[in-house]
Amino acid sequence: MATKNKNIAKGSICDWQAPTKRQKASNKSRILRFKEGFRWTSVKLERYKEEKGSWSSVARMVLTGNHGESTKFSLRYFEISPQGFTSLEKHTHEHVIICIRGRGKIVLDNKKYQINYLDTIYVSPNTIHQLINPYDEPFGFFCIVDSKRDKPIVLS
Amino acid sequence: MATKNKNIAKGSICDWQAPTKRQKASNKSRILRFKEGFRWTSVKLERYKEEKGSWSSVARMVLTGNHGESTKFSLRYFEISPQGFTSLEKHTHEHVIICIRGRGKIVLDNKKYQINYLDTIYVSPNTIHQLINPYDEPFGFFCIVDSKRDKPIVLS
Repeated sequence: MATKNKNIAKGSICDWQAPTKRQKASNKSRILRFKEGFRWTSVKLERYKEEKGSWSSVARMVLTGNHGESTKFSLRYFEISPQGFTSLEKHTHEHVIICIRGRGKIVLDNKKYQINYLDTIYVSPNTIHQLINPYDEPFGFFCIVDSKRDKPIVLS
Repeated sequence: MATKNKNIAKGSICDWQAPTKRQKASNKSRILRFKEGFRWTSVKLERYKEEKGSWSSVARMVLTGNHGESTKFSLRYFEISPQGFTSLEKHTHEHVIICIRGRGKIVLDNKKYQINYLDTIYVSPNTIHQLINPYDEPFGFFCIVDSKRDKPIVLS
């Protein structure tokens, strides 16, 4: 029997993809309805980094930013399964992270902090960071980034 | 006796302020802790538009975007009290709205839609829009915008 987690892809929060032409899409107002299981109508679950790396059990969805919008930012939702984590990495671009499901931990340079519901984290340029889910429930968060951004440096 | 709503300022969602020099502030990573009553540590409640207008009972907080960040976007939280509403207006810049408290309605051109928890709305350029709270509980939402944006045209 299919489970809800069947389609959870692996990936990294600090995604980077080579610049491509903007998707041709209608730039119309739209409402993405929130659905059971932390999904939104017409938003697909994506694989993030093609290459395997020092990350585990991270799912990614792009809510706005790749449908013809002219915003200078993208809104993504990430979900880390229990015991999963993103790459430990740094880059010049900034993150704004908002916890909306469960709880987790974030590494910011040399310290680790607990993150709870609706806590909002600003990750400044070149801060070494990593998101971790040491708990038994999914840890989900929005992550807002500039549309144009540099490629992360993955650390060991 | 003071109530929690004492400091609720009036304002408009589609704020606009004349460009000013970026606040001098430390551009360090930081965690804004979510607190009871939909507040965040060290984030102040602001008055939005100085002038009174065709809006009522809207509070505004800037979570990121005015503390020395170099992001090309700002993250704000707005809260509309029961029976409150924002201006009916349009502008070239886009909104991304995420409902996180209660529920409300949004006007998009000629139609009105219900908005529920975590529904996410993209408002495209020059869409006539208005946020309304016809319910008995506060209606709160994040609104993400480009840092550089045009001044709204308020409609009657």
